[in-house]
Amino acid sequence: MMPISSLQIEDLLAAYREARATPEQVIHAVYDRIDAWPDKAVWISLFPREEALARARALAERPEGIDGLPLYGIPFAVKDNIDCAGLPTTAACPDYAYQPWENATAVQRLLDAGAIAIGKTNLDQFATGLNGTRSPYGAPRCVFDGEYISGGSSSGSAVAVAAGLVSFALGTDTAGSGRVPAALNNIVGVKPTKGLLSTAGVVPACRSLDCVTVFALNVGDGNRVRRISQANDGDDPYGRTLTPRPLPLRGFRFGVLAGEDRKFCGDRDAAGLYDRACERLASLGGQAVEIDYQPFAAAAALLYDGPWVAERLAAIQTFFNTSPGAINPVVRQIIQGGRRFTSVDAFEGQYRLKALERVAAREWEKIDFMLLPTCPTTYTVAEMEANPIEYNANLGLYTNFVNLLDCCGVAVPAGRRRDGLPLGVTLIGPAFTDDALAVLADRLHRALVETAGATGQGLSARSLVPEPAPAAYVDLAVVGAHLRGMPLHHQLTELDALFVRACRTAAPYRLYALPNTEPAKPGLIREPGYAGKGVEVEVWRLTEAAFGRFVGRIPGPLGIGTVELEDGSSVKSFLCEEWAVRGAEDITGFGGWKAYCTALTIKAGAASAG
Amino acid sequence: MMPISSLQIEDLLAAYREARATPEQVIHAVYDRIDAWPDKAVWISLFPREEALARARALAERPEGIDGLPLYGIPFAVKDNIDCAGLPTTAACPDYAYQPWENATAVQRLLDAGAIAIGKTNLDQFATGLNGTRSPYGAPRCVFDGEYISGGSSSGSAVAVAAGLVSFALGTDTAGSGRVPAALNNIVGVKPTKGLLSTAGVVPACRSLDCVTVFALNVGDGNRVRRISQANDGDDPYGRTLTPRPLPLRGFRFGVLAGEDRKFCGDRDAAGLYDRACERLASLGGQAVEIDYQPFAAAAALLYDGPWVAERLAAIQTFFNTSPGAINPVVRQIIQGGRRFTSVDAFEGQYRLKALERVAAREWEKIDFMLLPTCPTTYTVAEMEANPIEYNANLGLYTNFVNLLDCCGVAVPAGRRRDGLPLGVTLIGPAFTDDALAVLADRLHRALVETAGATGQGLSARSLVPEPAPAAYVDLAVVGAHLRGMPLHHQLTELDALFVRACRTAAPYRLYALPNTEPAKPGLIREPGYAGKGVEVEVWRLTEAAFGRFVGRIPGPLGIGTVELEDGSSVKSFLCEEWAVRGAEDITGFGGWKAYCTALTIKAGAASAG
Repeated sequence: MMPISSLQIEDLLAAYREARATPEQVIHAVYDRIDAWPDKAVWISLFPREEALARARALAERPEGIDGLPLYGIPFAVKDNIDCAGLPTTAACPDYAYQPWENATAVQRLLDAGAIAIGKTNLDQFATGLNGTRSPYGAPRCVFDGEYISGGSSSGSAVAVAAGLVSFALGTDTAGSGRVPAALNNIVGVKPTKGLLSTAGVVPACRSLDCVTVFALNVGDGNRVRRISQANDGDDPYGRTLTPRPLPLRGFRFGVLAGEDRKFCGDRDAAGLYDRACERLASLGGQAVEIDYQPFAAAAALLYDGPWVAERLAAIQTFFNTSPGAINPVVRQIIQGGRRFTSVDAFEGQYRLKALERVAAREWEKIDFMLLPTCPTTYTVAEMEANPIEYNANLGLYTNFVNLLDCCGVAVPAGRRRDGLPLGVTLIGPAFTDDALAVLADRLHRALVETAGATGQGLSARSLVPEPAPAAYVDLAVVGAHLRGMPLHHQLTELDALFVRACRTAAPYRLYALPNTEPAKPGLIREPGYAGKGVEVEVWRLTEAAFGRFVGRIPGPLGIGTVELEDGSSVKSFLCEEWAVRGAEDITGFGGWKAYCTALTIKAGAASAG
Repeated sequence: MMPISSLQIEDLLAAYREARATPEQVIHAVYDRIDAWPDKAVWISLFPREEALARARALAERPEGIDGLPLYGIPFAVKDNIDCAGLPTTAACPDYAYQPWENATAVQRLLDAGAIAIGKTNLDQFATGLNGTRSPYGAPRCVFDGEYISGGSSSGSAVAVAAGLVSFALGTDTAGSGRVPAALNNIVGVKPTKGLLSTAGVVPACRSLDCVTVFALNVGDGNRVRRISQANDGDDPYGRTLTPRPLPLRGFRFGVLAGEDRKFCGDRDAAGLYDRACERLASLGGQAVEIDYQPFAAAAALLYDGPWVAERLAAIQTFFNTSPGAINPVVRQIIQGGRRFTSVDAFEGQYRLKALERVAAREWEKIDFMLLPTCPTTYTVAEMEANPIEYNANLGLYTNFVNLLDCCGVAVPAGRRRDGLPLGVTLIGPAFTDDALAVLADRLHRALVETAGATGQGLSARSLVPEPAPAAYVDLAVVGAHLRGMPLHHQLTELDALFVRACRTAAPYRLYALPNTEPAKPGLIREPGYAGKGVEVEVWRLTEAAFGRFVGRIPGPLGIGTVELEDGSSVKSFLCEEWAVRGAEDITGFGGWKAYCTALTIKAGAASAG
């Protein structure tokens, strides 16, 4: 009997910690659920139950314990184009299959963190497709309606998570394979910035674009797994290290489709779900900004119509030439297309992409990130099989450009059509905004839907994505010539400083008018025991880089220290060396530099009038 | 009569400022020199003398004046694959020629700064070559010996500068065209980071790699022109904006060739000149570190043996197909080679390059930049014509990898062989180290040779490259727990801080042992009038971003202010709020925090022993 119902990661970890369940019990329940799930096209291979149980038991021997293993006893699935030692890698092509000796880096890091691999999941062969029907292992079905496609190429991974068979699953994403099946099964798809998760041990689709992705029941889980799995391991030549880029988490501007760019293939419910998502996101503190989607659409078209399809051929060239009959006919037709491009075409495709990047950059200037439909509609398996190229292309309308233009994305459920089928929206940000995007995606997810996948369970409150540590910014209290309206204020605005608030220091500070300064400046000094009324300051927020530039230019005797504010909090602030205020006029009584300057002006005016 | 002899930029500007010459006089002298120069293969077209004189006269009307026009009245040449409105662009192929309506961005920015364009210079056709013999306009010759090649492809630009016909010249560089002819004519070649100078208005060679470069008589001039010309103008899809990366300017580690990697094609003098340059650079404050050149050599080989040659075909495809007979046979043979590659080959070439990047990265970890021979030797025109592919490839042995692996470089003269022919060395740094590399290249140039080009004139003392403005970095004096060997030192190394020097503060500072700090910390206070011996500090250099992060984390009562050092200079430094040292132990007499800690330990040891 399953001791707990939710497989969401934080729920499971809480159950372990509170001894409401053991990993062994959970693994038993996972295999029971897999046995009971009617769709037999989800898995290509499974570890024997006994093997997984043995690994669950072995966790108890790990010296790190549950607190040192962030995925302790968490069951997961792996798309079958990612190596998992002990099971063959097929890429959904039995004749291509090989037995890997090592785990892919992305898998190994999860195992090291205590996660338990259950098996390998079905996919569109060689990850070529967004629909899930292109596999000799059958077409996994949408968890809500067996007539409908699951989406792909990471079809089995998405269904395994949505059906509650595992806590999370790895997928891959070149054109949208880590996002479309998330949308079609009411779960989350985390598509990291290219290069963050190593592709070492992954069968390539387009090696220059491929990403390893995470399917999960909530954004917190997906983001947690992404962060644990990511590693610039040296074995992925395209590997990169995350240098996080912030996004405003309030007052953000998000790009939305408008006019002719709103294409939903006639699916009115899809359009309605998208509009609702835009409204909810705006109500979470953002402003929708209409963008011109054309440069993005043009980049998207390059992926299958341009020379990048040759990368798919490059990936399996020898096999393709020797065993063409072993390949799914639709997949073969697509990959075959790579033959028609010359090296000149390949470079010209890159020039075209570079030029589109420039045009797209003008749209990015208007926004912080985008909110797009994950896919414009969905199809039945029968429809897809009848029109496998065109309908597949439709599914990629809003996903294909993302890796080409070096973005990251988080796909979240957007709700259900009237017929009960789920669709999704994706938050798309520039490279390296993964951390910030997860915060916003989590908020939107929780604002849009109640339940996770087809589990009927609510989104775990334990898995809320915390805001990124504020390390990337520094709050600075200014006291004198940098206040609004004062002569050096432009030094703050030139550095894009954000106004936070006007307030006062705590009591024990004195302000002095420094003699012989140009422009005139005050000096702030802490005097313990002095019971003043505090000194007026303005707090401004700077990036660390801007703060560094700012501080580097402050002339002595002024400097930057830490000051206590009236509410007991502390911020970085101008302070003055004590020797420089000896003999200077104590102007604390004016309450602040501006009041003092005003008084001086009035006095000067009175003097000249008199 | 030429009123002054040196065309070096700062000399000319000084002559203008001091009214020893006018731009009109200089332009007259330039045309006289051009008329008198025996090698008629240098120029493809010239502006009429009267036109240049008119522009020289018009400078007087410019409201900015000489102080607002950093290239006021400076004559320059433009390689004839770069558009210059008023003269045809030929790319050294008369049948390809067209009349540009606009200046290339790189040219326009120089004109805007007051420079005067004189004419267009010869090149290896379509910039395909490193030797200078592949042009129907003749082969420009080495300025020191007419039997020898000038190097290419920017042959005419290099000769025009070396012969003292112009102050500087623009070139281009894909494989080494901006560096090899600098080496062979005793001048400087500045090869900026890819994308810094716009290629808008430049006939492409390999569009993804092409750079606009600067030939000059000294590094200061070349660097000045580079900084004025550079612009991310939006018309170059590969354009990038400079975010300067620092290099240590003292205590630097530079990579050198060793063992089997030392290839000079039998030219012992070349080997000797290289070794001498390495010694001189070491004596300027660096440490030579032997590197494995193999990954760089493998990348270099990709440029002509790999699919990138298809970019040359892509650049002129229509012309190539319709007018093959109009193309130089050697150039045609090379560009024709681009036909044999498929799109799969193009992507596989990129995978190979990415993998080599990873291997090369391990070498970069050992060094800050490299010092390589610019080319291993030189050849006579007759030798080159007899063996045009192999000998050309030899010339690129140490240059071809630089753009593929996203480096910048400054080629400087290394001296002369016994037969009087000059050769050069190139400092090669990671992308965006252009500013710092120029400082080091200038120092090395001045340490290696006395005269500029074939002018017989010394390197202008006015053109010394100043150390990069400290804006991008901040020097920080640490006093206590951040000193080497102390418990918080890792906070500096984690931020990639560079050690600058150990020294003492000026006299009027006192150091106190702060009570109740963990780890133990001192507080530094300025005490005007106090005649101490100074306090030991270490100065560390941080990027502004790293400095900002660092300062943001300093807890009160410590902060950052400005401190005077024993040599009278000022740096940012830890300081302490004065209230916090009241009653604290004055430890100034120990000379510094480390000495105090050592004394405490000895005392503690003695106490426990006793």
